[in-house]
Amino acid sequence: MRDFLPEDVRRRQYVIDIVRRVYERYGFEPLETPALENIETLTGKYGEEGDKLLYKVLRRGEGEASGEADLALRYDLTVPLARVVADNRGKLPRFFKRYQIQPVWRADRPQRGRFREFYQCDVDAIGSTSAVVEAEMIAAVSEVLRSLGFSDFVVQLNHRQLLTAMLDAAGIPAERHTDALIAIDKLDKIGRDGVIQDMMNRGISPDSGRRAIDSATGDTSVQGSAPAENIATIMNLCEATPARGHVKFTPRLARGLSYYTGAIFEIAVPDLAGSLGGGGRYDGLIGMFSGDQIPACGFSLGLERILVVMTERGMFPPEVQAWGPDVLVTIFEEGLAAESLRLATELRAASLRVAVYPDALRAGKDLGKAFKYADAVKARFVTVLGTSEAEAQAVKIKDLATGAQGVASRSAVAASIRDSMKNRPISDQPPTSAQ
Amino acid sequence: MRDFLPEDVRRRQYVIDIVRRVYERYGFEPLETPALENIETLTGKYGEEGDKLLYKVLRRGEGEASGEADLALRYDLTVPLARVVADNRGKLPRFFKRYQIQPVWRADRPQRGRFREFYQCDVDAIGSTSAVVEAEMIAAVSEVLRSLGFSDFVVQLNHRQLLTAMLDAAGIPAERHTDALIAIDKLDKIGRDGVIQDMMNRGISPDSGRRAIDSATGDTSVQGSAPAENIATIMNLCEATPARGHVKFTPRLARGLSYYTGAIFEIAVPDLAGSLGGGGRYDGLIGMFSGDQIPACGFSLGLERILVVMTERGMFPPEVQAWGPDVLVTIFEEGLAAESLRLATELRAASLRVAVYPDALRAGKDLGKAFKYADAVKARFVTVLGTSEAEAQAVKIKDLATGAQGVASRSAVAASIRDSMKNRPISDQPPTSAQ
Repeated sequence: MRDFLPEDVRRRQYVIDIVRRVYERYGFEPLETPALENIETLTGKYGEEGDKLLYKVLRRGEGEASGEADLALRYDLTVPLARVVADNRGKLPRFFKRYQIQPVWRADRPQRGRFREFYQCDVDAIGSTSAVVEAEMIAAVSEVLRSLGFSDFVVQLNHRQLLTAMLDAAGIPAERHTDALIAIDKLDKIGRDGVIQDMMNRGISPDSGRRAIDSATGDTSVQGSAPAENIATIMNLCEATPARGHVKFTPRLARGLSYYTGAIFEIAVPDLAGSLGGGGRYDGLIGMFSGDQIPACGFSLGLERILVVMTERGMFPPEVQAWGPDVLVTIFEEGLAAESLRLATELRAASLRVAVYPDALRAGKDLGKAFKYADAVKARFVTVLGTSEAEAQAVKIKDLATGAQGVASRSAVAASIRDSMKNRPISDQPPTSAQ
Repeated sequence: MRDFLPEDVRRRQYVIDIVRRVYERYGFEPLETPALENIETLTGKYGEEGDKLLYKVLRRGEGEASGEADLALRYDLTVPLARVVADNRGKLPRFFKRYQIQPVWRADRPQRGRFREFYQCDVDAIGSTSAVVEAEMIAAVSEVLRSLGFSDFVVQLNHRQLLTAMLDAAGIPAERHTDALIAIDKLDKIGRDGVIQDMMNRGISPDSGRRAIDSATGDTSVQGSAPAENIATIMNLCEATPARGHVKFTPRLARGLSYYTGAIFEIAVPDLAGSLGGGGRYDGLIGMFSGDQIPACGFSLGLERILVVMTERGMFPPEVQAWGPDVLVTIFEEGLAAESLRLATELRAASLRVAVYPDALRAGKDLGKAFKYADAVKARFVTVLGTSEAEAQAVKIKDLATGAQGVASRSAVAASIRDSMKNRPISDQPPTSAQ
């Protein structure tokens, strides 16, 4: 688990703000759930492996000595959503579309771009079986990626029932299908021979394995069956959205989780072995909590993966990368502290981001220290307000980006700083406010 | 612990966005720390009571059977900050000012406005003993509260060493000071007699107790000693900031926590028994982690309390209270799904928030259902796009706020919706975008 220092938080916040804005534009509404869930809510939902990765919380008070756990930290955002939908039946609209951007915790061995505490950005749409839902979801995710500056992503698309038919045709018995899907899901990572070996380890004959891989990687065309038509409809609808040109039918796409029942998707970019996110239709999961079968479809973006790729590619705008206060206000000597704070107040009222160097400069003796500090925190301007400036209602300003120095009247100083900021080339201009 | 449904999240996000914006303007930088800390980092920092309120996490894997905990959930944001400062010496600027807005967890009996998972919004300034730090902090918090619409708050101000001197004068022995402060801290809640009784239970004579309360509630003027001068300086500096008129020297203000060493503060509003937040100078805590004594001062706002008071007083702007998509796009019949999604794409490109009713309306037979849904989700406009409209590159629009209905050309529809939204009285106008 990691601390996020200011620069990290700013990069994360930049991505989260865009995700939020796009998802709002697609009519998704925000939801947040507690970090801790009752342990029964989570166990048995993620397979045996998943159960082992839960962070379990000891009972409090007298129960603590028992060494038993009654709560666990959220493992994903889908199961908590299913619980919320079951808990709030009647209160939520018939079609409920929510987005949720929160951390989840898994006691995993961390790999590149993977951590034990990490954020997921999920969208889910509850209550409709229409292919419009899948298309809208793929469109929203595509618009997020495009707004972040990605142009080379592919939304891979497949259907669980196509996979089932393919596995049947390859002679793999139904009770081995989940194993076969987990194996095929690794095709990009471990290759054809690796998958066949993995299938053999799971009791699937190499012959069946080979046939399954052949049809998964072959030139399968979408036709005929209902799931094939569903895929064709989704692809056709996507053409009317920002996903246009980014969606690709991908017969080998399997997705590990067992709860998917229809279309499944995953986002691939050329320079990342894993995916930036994925999802699919899961019409059975909510019924595990509510009793009623309620159709649902979701897409989860991995914030950490997105950040890794964006950092490696240098995709952040300059104002996110280099950031400091617009102005560092200094206190020339003790007796001018109140007047200097008044200057800071005036500059802040003009929406400038202002830090105050808290120690008085002993009538200028410590001016060097203050400028060194201004450099360290990447301040753009430094102000100096001595006795003569205070009397003249003026202030000295130095622009650290250009080296320019001058004196401005107090009533004009904020506007003058704003002007200099506007005139500076965008490539290294700090944001004028944190709005 | 609670789920936050969309309306709750929007209210929370509204407050958090303002807090963030104001703190950025004061030169504070964002920091985030993991939810889980090593258990040794947290135990022994919050007193015996605090240790009992920690959520402790079982060891994973083979360690699980031991029933032992090695991690615990964050209890506040101050101790994690002290750890971060110790971990990152040399990487942080000499004066490090950070804000942190994250949940904390306490296994407490919940009361009104108190929960087991709750958000704190903290600002802390590390590295300076200057009174400018306290003044800037009080100014920032005051500006947050004013920006949220509070005008009747008081920042109560006192000094730990004034309290110590007062307790000495009342004849309370040094080893009973913490007990006496905890008792005096409850004065507003349990009254004079309650405090004297509480002190007696803690082994303090009623005579000393009475004298302590008398001087804590009396007309003590600030004069003479160094701590008294420190308070006078802070109050004087605050007059140059948005805290002007809101700061009050409050001799009975005690603050429960033992780590404060200098000025302490707390925010009072007339209609809340507890406080909206508080803080103070703690020059010793960071040394517990780093070895070096590093001066520090912090202020913590309680998001949940603020939300309780703002909700009771109706302080949220209308666009936060009533919120729905700007437009609900319907699909008149199956064959028009792609064209309808194209319309949704066009409206979203104009930054409108657009939901799509996913089920086709069977050539209008289900129009009633769609309008009922539009009401439920508080959509402002509904569009209908039939075959004739598709051919004419037009679309029918209904304004649910006014009942007005019309047909617009596809190229003009977004602008026409924007116009209607602008012309509607602000009192019930939804926001035009979620930016």
